[in-house]
Amino acid sequence: MAAAREFGVPLTLVGDRERVEAELARHDCTGLDIELWHASEVVGMHDSASDAVRKKKDSSIRVAFELVKGGEAAAVVSAGNSGATMAAGMFVLKRMRGIDRPAIAQLLPTLTGSTLVLDVGGNVDCKPDHLVQFAVMGEVYARFVMGLQSPRVGILSNGEEASKGNELTRETSVLLREKPLNYIGYVEGRDVFNGSVDVVVCDGFVGNVVLKLSEGLAETVGKMLKAEIKSSLLSQIGYLLCRKAFNNFRKTVDYAEYGGAPLLGINGVGMICHGGSNPKAIKNAIRFAYDYALKGVNSRMAEKLDESFPKSVREREANEAPADAKERVVS
Amino acid sequence: MAAAREFGVPLTLVGDRERVEAELARHDCTGLDIELWHASEVVGMHDSASDAVRKKKDSSIRVAFELVKGGEAAAVVSAGNSGATMAAGMFVLKRMRGIDRPAIAQLLPTLTGSTLVLDVGGNVDCKPDHLVQFAVMGEVYARFVMGLQSPRVGILSNGEEASKGNELTRETSVLLREKPLNYIGYVEGRDVFNGSVDVVVCDGFVGNVVLKLSEGLAETVGKMLKAEIKSSLLSQIGYLLCRKAFNNFRKTVDYAEYGGAPLLGINGVGMICHGGSNPKAIKNAIRFAYDYALKGVNSRMAEKLDESFPKSVREREANEAPADAKERVVS
Repeated sequence: MAAAREFGVPLTLVGDRERVEAELARHDCTGLDIELWHASEVVGMHDSASDAVRKKKDSSIRVAFELVKGGEAAAVVSAGNSGATMAAGMFVLKRMRGIDRPAIAQLLPTLTGSTLVLDVGGNVDCKPDHLVQFAVMGEVYARFVMGLQSPRVGILSNGEEASKGNELTRETSVLLREKPLNYIGYVEGRDVFNGSVDVVVCDGFVGNVVLKLSEGLAETVGKMLKAEIKSSLLSQIGYLLCRKAFNNFRKTVDYAEYGGAPLLGINGVGMICHGGSNPKAIKNAIRFAYDYALKGVNSRMAEKLDESFPKSVREREANEAPADAKERVVS
Repeated sequence: MAAAREFGVPLTLVGDRERVEAELARHDCTGLDIELWHASEVVGMHDSASDAVRKKKDSSIRVAFELVKGGEAAAVVSAGNSGATMAAGMFVLKRMRGIDRPAIAQLLPTLTGSTLVLDVGGNVDCKPDHLVQFAVMGEVYARFVMGLQSPRVGILSNGEEASKGNELTRETSVLLREKPLNYIGYVEGRDVFNGSVDVVVCDGFVGNVVLKLSEGLAETVGKMLKAEIKSSLLSQIGYLLCRKAFNNFRKTVDYAEYGGAPLLGINGVGMICHGGSNPKAIKNAIRFAYDYALKGVNSRMAEKLDESFPKSVREREANEAPADAKERVVS
């Protein structure tokens, strides 16, 4: 509702009609462009991704992507089972030409802006080709969503020297040098937060470790500091005086400001939110999804993919056109 | 000097005699058990590990390990090229029976104590057997150095469910269930800092990312908070009042408290320090190395390795005995 009101996004809510109506009745929706679309099934957090795709044809996540496919909506926003969201998006909308594995990209805050890390979506045991595809998609995202002219693309490694890395990163590095990107070579874990790189490429195993470690460390640092401050009255008074600084800081590192992580590489827009998202996070995710669709990022991505992987244009069957044109968001 | 004075550790300083003597002359060493041992060559930070081993036979790092081999010292502490330290340690002292690849183990602070992460030493492209060996060594370290009765051992993965992980972690997990360890399964990035696991096993590529990301994030968080606090006078006054809390916090996450990271899996003791170590870090590393040697951790590790890998006892040639008995530290 906040997204519809603040940003004027037209919304279709997909799910059990009775439950969604009961929830809507508790709010004032006057004048908002909000529709309901009934879906009888639910993909739970412990269901497998294939349930979402094959067994539960009337699940809300599958129906939502069908709406995008049918031109009824431009983007899907989901805080449900992320594996299922990824699978349903791929199954219904198909992969973009040149992409073997769609990726989930996460923005992380730095001192000067933010860094995009991909994949964080569970693409474990990647091949070099997959990482190259992630790099191309991330570069387009950084240009057209983050607004960077020539985003610096790096491979996450265990050292900056070319002699470092593992088999996967070394082969990927050779391939990336031939692509039309501002590829800056290997970057290290510390570079994720220091603003020296814009797009950090890694497999989904490493990406997940990066994401969860960052969340965990930020939380632990906060708790440690709180415990120290509580240990003396003077510190507590001091804390009250600089509380505003703490709150500003918290806002900088708050995942809710970013809202969600885009699913890149499908013919359409999917935004994946944290399972424990608060209203602000969902609101921002809807805004990001809307912007993404309006800006036609997928058309730019398709062009860049064709430029980067010319063989795939000739050799592969053409997939459907990107779903950039439509403007309705499904949530 | 501080280590010799505060902890009574007998020390041998290995390096260019003239330069070490000039440095010593600037301090009061009265009554301290400090010897010099000349080494004419230096392994630089950009030299390859094999230089330390084969080409530079009189390099300080190689000579230091030779002193351990010859029974003149019990442990080596180095803040030099860590790859070279690892290579020299392996070459001179040989691997323990049952170990294919020695590992570097790093302690990281949590809310309630600390977590040991290994390998952080550059063993990229590991096989499941290597990770199992890391687990066994880490468990022994946690029991005899960290003082834990039944340390919880976990594999770092992209989710806790057994269905997660990559090829490496899945095979390792099957193998680890058969070993005499308190193996608790997969852990996630956030668990590294929340105290729910004592020994975190991963390959050296992932371990390096964990280490550098943690350092980088902690540094960035500190800078962000500082910038926010500086932005208003009230906040600055508040900061002055709770500065003690900040300092205590900083001490908790200060790498110098841990001093260095042990090189596990060689027949002797090696402690690897950060290249930018301050005197406190070196002092603590010397104390840790001394304790490690005195406690006979390597003998315990050899027993546990034989118990965990009974085949290796019969099939492999016996290596030399662990160097636990000697008590001199080489630095």
